[in-house]
Parts: sequence; C-alpha cells; structure tokens
Amino acid sequence: MAQGIRDMIKDTAKVADLAKDAKDAALLNGVLMRTKEASNSAELVTYAPFTLFPTPVPKAVFQQALDVQTHYNSLVDRISQNTDFLKEALASTIEVDEFTSRLFKIHKQTLKEGISQSVVLGLNRSDYMLDGSSSLKQIEINTISASFGGLAAGLVGVHKHILKVAGRLEDSMAILDNNPAAGLARAISKAKELYGAERAVVLILVSDDEQNIYDQRCVELELMKLNVFTIRRTFEDVCARGSLDKEKRLIIDGLEVALVYFRNGYAPQQYKSQQDWDTRLMLERSRAIKCPDIATHLTGTKKVQQVLARPGVLERFFPNEPRVVEQIRATFAGLYTLDMGPEGDTIVAMALKDPEKYVLKPQREGGGNNIYGSEICKVLQEAKGSERMAYILMDKINSTPSHNYLLRQDSPLTVSNCLSELGIFGAYVRQGTEMVMNEQVGHLLRTKSSAHADGGVAAGVAVLDNPFLY
Amino acid sequence: MAQGIRDMIKDTAKVADLAKDAKDAALLNGVLMRTKEASNSAELVTYAPFTLFPTPVPKAVFQQALDVQTHYNSLVDRISQNTDFLKEALASTIEVDEFTSRLFKIHKQTLKEGISQSVVLGLNRSDYMLDGSSSLKQIEINTISASFGGLAAGLVGVHKHILKVAGRLEDSMAILDNNPAAGLARAISKAKELYGAERAVVLILVSDDEQNIYDQRCVELELMKLNVFTIRRTFEDVCARGSLDKEKRLIIDGLEVALVYFRNGYAPQQYKSQQDWDTRLMLERSRAIKCPDIATHLTGTKKVQQVLARPGVLERFFPNEPRVVEQIRATFAGLYTLDMGPEGDTIVAMALKDPEKYVLKPQREGGGNNIYGSEICKVLQEAKGSERMAYILMDKINSTPSHNYLLRQDSPLTVSNCLSELGIFGAYVRQGTEMVMNEQVGHLLRTKSSAHADGGVAAGVAVLDNPFLY
Repeated sequence: MAQGIRDMIKDTAKVADLAKDAKDAALLNGVLMRTKEASNSAELVTYAPFTLFPTPVPKAVFQQALDVQTHYNSLVDRISQNTDFLKEALASTIEVDEFTSRLFKIHKQTLKEGISQSVVLGLNRSDYMLDGSSSLKQIEINTISASFGGLAAGLVGVHKHILKVAGRLEDSMAILDNNPAAGLARAISKAKELYGAERAVVLILVSDDEQNIYDQRCVELELMKLNVFTIRRTFEDVCARGSLDKEKRLIIDGLEVALVYFRNGYAPQQYKSQQDWDTRLMLERSRAIKCPDIATHLTGTKKVQQVLARPGVLERFFPNEPRVVEQIRATFAGLYTLDMGPEGDTIVAMALKDPEKYVLKPQREGGGNNIYGSEICKVLQEAKGSERMAYILMDKINSTPSHNYLLRQDSPLTVSNCLSELGIFGAYVRQGTEMVMNEQVGHLLRTKSSAHADGGVAAGVAVLDNPFLY
Repeated sequence: MAQGIRDMIKDTAKVADLAKDAKDAALLNGVLMRTKEASNSAELVTYAPFTLFPTPVPKAVFQQALDVQTHYNSLVDRISQNTDFLKEALASTIEVDEFTSRLFKIHKQTLKEGISQSVVLGLNRSDYMLDGSSSLKQIEINTISASFGGLAAGLVGVHKHILKVAGRLEDSMAILDNNPAAGLARAISKAKELYGAERAVVLILVSDDEQNIYDQRCVELELMKLNVFTIRRTFEDVCARGSLDKEKRLIIDGLEVALVYFRNGYAPQQYKSQQDWDTRLMLERSRAIKCPDIATHLTGTKKVQQVLARPGVLERFFPNEPRVVEQIRATFAGLYTLDMGPEGDTIVAMALKDPEKYVLKPQREGGGNNIYGSEICKVLQEAKGSERMAYILMDKINSTPSHNYLLRQDSPLTVSNCLSELGIFGAYVRQGTEMVMNEQVGHLLRTKSSAHADGGVAAGVAVLDNPFLY
C-alpha cells in the first residue's frame, strides 16, 4: 500500500485538485495557524503547513517508539529527582551557557527553600529519525512546551479524507487515530485534581505573540471538556498581577492557580528582562504544580542526553531493569562531549575530519539552530576558550528520503525530497514517590524538505504529517 | 436559565475575553468563511459571523417548527408535481419577472420532452420568525441552495464551550446537537444509490467566487464519509466540458453524474449569459437527479407561498389530512397578492395606509432585497404598469428583540438589539410515487441586529446562532 501512495505522488494531474481539497479539509479540521503578520489576531488565519500525503513509516519502528515512551517518562522523572546527577552532568554547560546557568540557579534556590509541591506533571515528546530503514534514533526529548499535540489530531481527518478522494479507501482506513491533546489534557486534569482545590485554574504560560496558538487552544478545548478551567497569561501578566500568599499559593486576578503549563519560557529570548526570570522563580517557588518543574526542564537539555549515552549511566536510573535499559539504549544515537580536556579534544578532531558525519547541536530548546557540514568546522575552529562546550556533537542520521508535497501558505505546489521525524507524546503524573499515571498519549510526524537540514514546523520548515504504516 | 444568558450579556468585563475564546473556538470548529477580497483562495480565511451567546427560543415553537417539517417536505414535493397549479399560481409572476419566466420555460420544455429521471431529491430549509413570544410565522421556504447546514454543526461546539468557559455548565449541556450537513449528505447518498451507477459522482454546481464554500465543503466531507464522490463545477465548466449521451446520461470530464446539487443558479445575476441558461436546460433534461428539479425550484417562489395562504388551497394538496393542513397553516403569516386587478388594488391601498405593518418581498431567491416602511410606498407608487406584480406583500412580524454580541471579522465588540430567524432543514427522496425518505434533519438559527431590517448571513447582515430552549 505504501507503493500506492508513492504512485499517487507522481499523478501530477490529480495533485492540484487534491491540494485544494486538502487545504480546505485542513482548515475545517482545525489544522490552523495565525499569520506571521498578525499573530495576535483571530481575524485572518491560515492552515498550518502539512504534507498532501501521509508518509510511509515501517510498522516495527513505529511500535518500538510507542513501546519505549513510558520508560522515557520514567527516565526523565528519575533524572529530575537526582540533583547530584544533574549538577554533575550540567557543570560544563553552566559554565558556558547562560540560559542553562540561570535555570540551574532557580533549581538550586528552590531546593534550598524546600520543594512546596509533591505532585509532578510531565508532558514530553521524544523525537526520532530513522537511520537506514529500520533503526530508530532519538534526536531529542522535549520536556517543556512540547507542541503539535493539538494540530496532529486534526490532520488525521485530512489525510483520511484525501486518500478517500484519491480513491484509496483501504489506505484511508489505515491512517491511525491520534489525539495527543486529549491525552495531555487528561494528565493535566489528573494532576489538577491532586492539587485539591476544585475552583483553582490551570494557568497556561504563553507569549503574547504566538502563531501556533491553535495547537494550544486544542488542549484548552480538551480541558474544558473535562471541566478544567484555563487562563492564558504571559510572564508580564504574572509579574504585574500574580503573587504568592502565605502558603505559597499562586494567585492571579483573584484566581488560585493549581497548575502552570509552560508553553513559553523554553528559549533564552523569551525572557525579556530580569523580571521574567524573577517571575519564573516565583512560579517555581509556588505551590502550583509546574509542567514542567525546573529540574524536568533541565533534564531535557542535550547535555543530559549526551551524558546518558555514556556506558553505565542509564543503569544508574534503572538498576534492576536491564531490559528497560536495553530498550532505551536501542534508540540512542552516538552523542559526544565537547567539554574542555583530552576527551573533548579527540572529539573535535574527529568532527573536523569528517564533518558530514555529524550534527553540532546547541544545548538549548527550540529547533532551527543545528549546525551541519563545513559550518561545523567553522564553529569549532572559531570557538574561543570554552565556547565549544555550549554544543554537543551527534552522529548525523542517514534517513532515506521520500517524495511528498509540502502545503504551506502561498507556496507553489512542487514535489519535495523529504525527511521525516517521528515524535511520541508522553504524559505522567507523580505524587511524592508514587507514579499515578504513566502513558504514551499519541504521536506526531513532521516532514521537511531535505534541502532544509534543520528546523521545526513553527520555524517554517518542517510541516505536519501522518505516518502511513507498512 | 435563559435569564442566566441575559445576565452574562451584561457582564462586559468578561465579554471581551469570551469573544477571544469564541473566535478561536469557531475557527477550530470549522465555522469558517473566505474573505470578500480573496473568495477564491484558501490561503487566508476568517470565522463565519456568529453570535457570542446562543439566543433564548421557546421550546414549544421550536418543537412546532420541527414537527411541521416533514409536512412541508410533502407539500413542496406535491406542488412540484402539479404543473397546472404551478402554471396558474405563477402566471402573473411570469409576466413581470424574467427570472421566473425563464425557469418556467425550461420547466415547460422538459415536460414536453418527457421527464428522464423518476428519482427526486429535495433539500430545503423552512425559515420562521416569532410573532410575539409564542407564534411561529413562516418567512419563506428555500427549495434551492439552502445553506448553512454545514457551518451550523460547528457552532454547537462553540456555544457549548463558551457557556462552559463562562461557568454555565448546565446551560452548556442544554445546547442541542445539530448536524444538518450529515442529514443532507445522507439524503444525497440515498438518492445517488437509487440512480444506480456505483461509479457515478455527485456534481455540486457552484460559482467560482464563493465566500461560503466551507458550508458546502462540510457537506462534501460528510458525503466522502459515506463513500460518495463529489466534483465541484461551474455553469461554465459544464457548458465547456459537459454533455448528454444518447441515454441522456450527463458526462463531464469523463465522469458520469448521478446527481446535480445546486449551490448556485438561484439568483438572476448567477446566469451570466445565454450559455448558462442553456446549461441549466441541459442539466434539467439529463438523466441525472436534480436537487432541486426545476419544478421544485419554482415551488420555492414567494408567489406560490402567497397562493398557498389563500383559503382552500392547502386542502388541495392534503385532501384527506385536515390535521396536516392545520399544522402547516398555523405557521403561515398573512400574505397578499399584488396582481393587477381589484384585489391587488385593495392590497396596495392597505399597504400605503400602514406601510409599517408590512414587508414587500421580491419573488426571487437570495435575501437582502426586502423592502420596509416608507420605501414600500415609494416602490408601489413608482411601479409602472404591472411592475408591482414582481412583489408580494407580507405581514411584518413583530418579534421581541434580544441582546447579543455579533462577532464579525474586524468589527468592534458591541451589544446589539437583535432579531432571530429559525430555519429547519428538510430532506426527502421520492422514487416515482414512493417517498423513500422524508425527514427533518436539523436546524439553523440566524440572528441579526434589528437595525438591519433584512439580509441573510452571507449578505453580511444576519449571523449564525444556536437556539437556547426555554
């Protein structure tokens, strides 16, 4: 059946009509984005970029990614509770990356003052590429603001419809149901319930300038279905009108906040002033459940990912679970330290020799910053002092490209040579030492032209997609 | 509970936030329209105009409107088969209204040639206003291109969500489920099945310039769910590439057409040339099922509505069903002929004396042309010869206004004094003399500022709404 999809892509006569149908179906299914020009306005919107056809993905690797997700949830959660590990792993990063350093400072300070909330909510997305045709390699795990769980749900109906219109009824039925936003909302609702104040609300920390608001709105709609009230506030709003009471309850505009769901604050430029950092500290200090708390945020750094790839490290978190270790490790790509010292020097030499084999990744969140090919040499050769420590080096993954049409506002309809990235959403809730929920809640396929070596969907490069299993 | 909604409208502090939530929810629920500036493009769209809150409607009249719908279906269907009645009723209209005259000519010609298809599909919408607080009065029945069955479905989720966000959980649950598009699609699918060619398609006759395309797309999506294939074509497309084979099968672009669903061709300006009229004739002659056939189209004229209001006329169509007659007649408003002659002269005098009591309605389809107040006098006094016969006079209905916010692209958020119009969708399929399906398939509430005396949603005046029954 995957061959059938490959054949359709070649049928250029039909493709133009299908693309019209697909755009309207995307709009009607809520696969929406605001425009760059007016990201603050609901008056004119466009479809979120997406592929005309779903992309063939081998069943076995898809299942492998689903199966390992709850273990990744446990891993993230266990690392976040191991202060010594985090401190050691991030020591070199903190030296050179101001962002990580400031986050870690908040972590230390709140630890010193004492953690005020025993309920932890983790919503993450583990992203993979296919090395060759059957080997799954993790790119990163997003432990803060993992997005597209809302829009991914809408795209299911679009691809089902398009395959039917194209006369491929059976293929259409093979598109998997998928509603990550519902799972994320279920976990938020569970955590909020454990907070224990019925009238308290969920605060979604947002930027005031968000093209991808409809993805967030999907989670809000799912939460409202569960009778969970949400409010959207920026750092500025919280700074101006939010405060902690004597019991460290977070209050804003007269409402008690049970849970702060971060959809902002994952990238340095989102902290526009010292006030924003002070606000993050206040949120972390509060009794509100944080999604994520700052330790979980730090767990998502590339440096932690690289340290985990060292022999023996995973075993520390799963001392009596060799099969879990094996399952997780099977998804690791080669990751290498660029710390100062003989090990890092050897790695630099290795990268300079064969730059095409690697990707140089900054340690921060929010795609669009990876470095490839000769640029790697340039960056490593021009790095002064310990600047290279702001990066880690990773094996470049050799995915087999496929053809597809990337539908994007005002873009011409042309076949692209594409690479895809599979994300799996994880959701867990812990209360004290007890895991109350630990689930895999859906998937996300994103596809980009292989001309673009890097970038997320929001960055205008990768587009939303669905896996077509074979 | 209706009082609760009235109270919310006064809470201006909350209303601004609710309006933001509502616009995004409308967009995510597919309550969409294209822009006037680029009605041919899916690149930028807006929300279809709608009310922030649902509008209280008395339960009894709502139920009355639902209950009478299948009788209206029968009535329309029976009139459409009574050529003598149509001829007599429309004689005076044909004299003065070129549009009706041309439609009737096609009717006569195809009758002469012999009807080539025994399956009839009727999709209509009967529209009412409330006279006082408990008396339902029919405004008109739309027998061609009855719209908003798609967008109405999406608005259910929007108002449910908004009432929940406003803290009115119980009220939210009281919003009725409603999916007219699904019912329209079911009837189309049923008729298409009776046509008997599995691979034949449904042709949706459209204009190439349609802001309200998403309403049509909803029906297409529902049809695709039923595995019914649709194609969208204009009069020009059909003229250029469509033809009848020896058995009068309609063929276009190599596809056999089982059914023509008119979403264009209801207003004079939509026939841009003699070719478009020739095309309508070809479609009418064809073996394809027509929704509507030309007789059913003619049955929707105001003149027929006025003739039906005369004593004894309804009884001709329901000779042994006095209770059906009673049920239908209970929804009639006063309707008066302006035909030349003593009866018409008396009516003109009556209208000139108390113009505020009446509405002057042109006999054609597609809102926005009604005449009120002193304008009535002007039109009647300036009418030359038999020009007045292009209109009928109707009692003006005295609805009790309610307050609401009308959300419309780029419009300020202000309370409006509003009037509402309730539409009920009817769907029926007849094969020869046997009614195979006869159903009421959903409702539509439209609300307009009472400052605007007239106009449909598409005309930028009335907006989509939901009834809140009390």
